[in-house]
Amino acid sequence: MPDRIFNFSAGPAVLPVEVLEQAARDIVNFNGKGIGLIEMSHRSKDFIAVAEETESLLREILGVPENFKVLFLQGGASLQFAMVPMNLLGSGKKGAYLNTGTWSKKAIKEAKLFGDVQVAYTSEESNFNHVPARGDYKVDADAEYLYFVSNNTIFGTQFQSMPQVEPMLVCDMSSDILSRPFDFSPFGLAFAGAQKNMGPAGCTVVFIREDLLDRTPTNVATMLKYKTHADAGSMFNTPPCFSIHVIGLVLKWLKKLGGLTAITEMNRDKAALLYHAIDASDFYRGHAQPASRSNMNVTFNLPTPELEAQFVKEATAQGLDGLKGHRSVGGCRASIYNAFPRQGVEKLIGFMQEFEKRHG
Amino acid sequence: MPDRIFNFSAGPAVLPVEVLEQAARDIVNFNGKGIGLIEMSHRSKDFIAVAEETESLLREILGVPENFKVLFLQGGASLQFAMVPMNLLGSGKKGAYLNTGTWSKKAIKEAKLFGDVQVAYTSEESNFNHVPARGDYKVDADAEYLYFVSNNTIFGTQFQSMPQVEPMLVCDMSSDILSRPFDFSPFGLAFAGAQKNMGPAGCTVVFIREDLLDRTPTNVATMLKYKTHADAGSMFNTPPCFSIHVIGLVLKWLKKLGGLTAITEMNRDKAALLYHAIDASDFYRGHAQPASRSNMNVTFNLPTPELEAQFVKEATAQGLDGLKGHRSVGGCRASIYNAFPRQGVEKLIGFMQEFEKRHG
Repeated sequence: MPDRIFNFSAGPAVLPVEVLEQAARDIVNFNGKGIGLIEMSHRSKDFIAVAEETESLLREILGVPENFKVLFLQGGASLQFAMVPMNLLGSGKKGAYLNTGTWSKKAIKEAKLFGDVQVAYTSEESNFNHVPARGDYKVDADAEYLYFVSNNTIFGTQFQSMPQVEPMLVCDMSSDILSRPFDFSPFGLAFAGAQKNMGPAGCTVVFIREDLLDRTPTNVATMLKYKTHADAGSMFNTPPCFSIHVIGLVLKWLKKLGGLTAITEMNRDKAALLYHAIDASDFYRGHAQPASRSNMNVTFNLPTPELEAQFVKEATAQGLDGLKGHRSVGGCRASIYNAFPRQGVEKLIGFMQEFEKRHG
Repeated sequence: MPDRIFNFSAGPAVLPVEVLEQAARDIVNFNGKGIGLIEMSHRSKDFIAVAEETESLLREILGVPENFKVLFLQGGASLQFAMVPMNLLGSGKKGAYLNTGTWSKKAIKEAKLFGDVQVAYTSEESNFNHVPARGDYKVDADAEYLYFVSNNTIFGTQFQSMPQVEPMLVCDMSSDILSRPFDFSPFGLAFAGAQKNMGPAGCTVVFIREDLLDRTPTNVATMLKYKTHADAGSMFNTPPCFSIHVIGLVLKWLKKLGGLTAITEMNRDKAALLYHAIDASDFYRGHAQPASRSNMNVTFNLPTPELEAQFVKEATAQGLDGLKGHRSVGGCRASIYNAFPRQGVEKLIGFMQEFEKRHG
């Protein structure tokens, strides 16, 4: 195998090599049973054991409370933008939203189809370069929930502490789940697409407080009711078996590494290195305000769009891949999720310094 | 690697070994690029090429007309049960359904949430042991479509010829897509979950006539509108990349084998062998009426439930796996999809004869 590149992609994103290698073996012959993982009935004893182990590791590592169901769904976080209000709102009911980027905007759009919406805060006028602190907004007393995105992949911002609000929080944690501890007690519902810190695209994990399962209006399609999947242990229909299995492998890797305590520290360290390099230079400018900076996605600009294009091109040639920023921000973005190696951050910083010398 | 078992599972189901082996290599290092297939951005040049090739092979092998969009969605066929009426019906509009088994029943239930339903035919009173012939039913003149399930996985029945009706057919071809030719011209929409003849669970392919994309009522969630995915080339959000890739590998395998002409003949041959063995014995009884028999799923009973349990147990011990029938029919079911080898059918027949000698 040729050397692995350093993959800064925002998602689907880098996964641990040992996970990829195990997944490759399992696809052809699972546990020496003479059948591949992706050929096995989802109702077979062997696959049910896979799904149960994945759920149990998720619960253990994240500290998911007993009164939450863990669901493995399809459709991506984007389908959750609709399923959340479909299930939790209804005629005359209101959801409050913190608008901190592209994904919250999309969630707000869907919520308006299924209930009333209060946009309690927006940072759109500053191109989403920060998230609000507690006290920067006021949530309507009649809101069913306050919805927020814990990490904004595109803009490189992250809530350092959770919003506090009655009666409950709904959180899209697609791009920082498993990267740090979350206290689930203020949550009613949280969800995350797998394809950043958890595994391959094609699976969305939903955590839902059990007492919310009965709120769904009766006219919602069976597949779009959380209760359908909760009652069937995520096997109402064929689940995304391969993604669930790889999530399990990633969780085993993470547990061996030391779980959330260890990974939080590693993520802080990697991000601090990179932000330090940005702050030490006048050539590179961070997009996010320092208090809102993400440890997962580091967004920065160079003096001109031409230099940015040159930077991305030269970096790619050196095996530093996926650094082009999202079109909404321009510039560069280094996504440094759990599985991204420190060595790659060091190589990027070396390249940045060298590039600045030539062009600064 | 130990010997492969013969996998009679109804789905997820057996895939060609060469496909599994290629998928395993691609997961770790795709095309020697130093990055695994499941780590690559779905917007990367490399993955876009994968998705385009998969679509183009599907179009070529199935003969999908130019005026159809091909979509790669998530949620399984079960989500299509709701998306079809959500998009094609609406207040006062009617869909006609042929009720030939568990999956059509579920589709009928969802359609009632989004429009009027005519159940034009049902074989429920005979435990779904047949599908109707043309002329056995009359479709209301004001129906928008006639919905049917081309192959009923659970009961082992299959439409030998397509229903004929104005204005259009909607077809769930989850369990016999790619097993035989379909004429798309009477279709408005067809769909299939991947996990039988196409690839791993987690992807549903939808074929939709372009002029239908604008029928969707405005209050449908963005992710549930076919137009959303058609306009974005199935990349409105992160698609199930791995499943799409493996579908592409399966299609290459099928094309090399001789496409639908060759596979139709192979499927007929395998099924005929097995039905012949059943018909030659008084010990085994086929569930499906002969004119409705499926070439994909062969359902049969033994004289008693105890013998059936014993049969399945002994077969499993001999590497003939997954023969237990669905609880709705009881008895046994041998799913012999495209990738299931003739040799496995021969071994099953040998076992059946030997078992009958001992217990008949």
